[in-house]
Amino acid sequence: MIAQTPEPPYWAVIFSSERTEGDNGYGAMAEAMEALAAEQPGYLGFESARDSGLGLAVAYFKDLESIAAWKANRSHAAAQAKGRESWYSAYTVRVARVERAYGFERDD
Amino acid sequence: MIAQTPEPPYWAVIFSSERTEGDNGYGAMAEAMEALAAEQPGYLGFESARDSGLGLAVAYFKDLESIAAWKANRSHAAAQAKGRESWYSAYTVRVARVERAYGFERDD
Repeated sequence: MIAQTPEPPYWAVIFSSERTEGDNGYGAMAEAMEALAAEQPGYLGFESARDSGLGLAVAYFKDLESIAAWKANRSHAAAQAKGRESWYSAYTVRVARVERAYGFERDD
Repeated sequence: MIAQTPEPPYWAVIFSSERTEGDNGYGAMAEAMEALAAEQPGYLGFESARDSGLGLAVAYFKDLESIAAWKANRSHAAAQAKGRESWYSAYTVRVARVERAYGFERDD
């Protein structure tokens, strides 16, 4: 579930969101967008979690050009519009350059 | 729930984790660490979400010095050790410089 990403530097798009009530087709679209993102040039990985209050999703990309291309993808742009129209009460997108990364994995 | 952060640039520490079974004191420690982080110089905000598979937490800081100080905080260092000992089966920490941010908020 933790994305396996290469050595930094690379880029992260952090998407923090608060949902409206009900599904309204969100679940199916989220799955479709995750699959579509994985096909984009420069895509490195994706992580997401949602609990009652907040959703966090982080997509990792090789460079800013890859991020710009994904933002402009026609199906993704339609999903973004639908998100503002019905799925989200608020969201923030942060584009960040990953400079350092390290991890831990249990042996046993 | 979405962190209110200043204009970029600032820094994000993205913490992606997979938990072991059971609570083992994790919930109480997580709350204590969130409160303690909020008192650190350079702290700008915090967001977290966890579902069955993955936990994502993002802490925002003014600069790398603030991040280094928080990492070295004695109570936080003890919590990190306990995390490796019992709470997490795996985690990745990514330190990233936020270069751009924008958002949406529903009017109605």
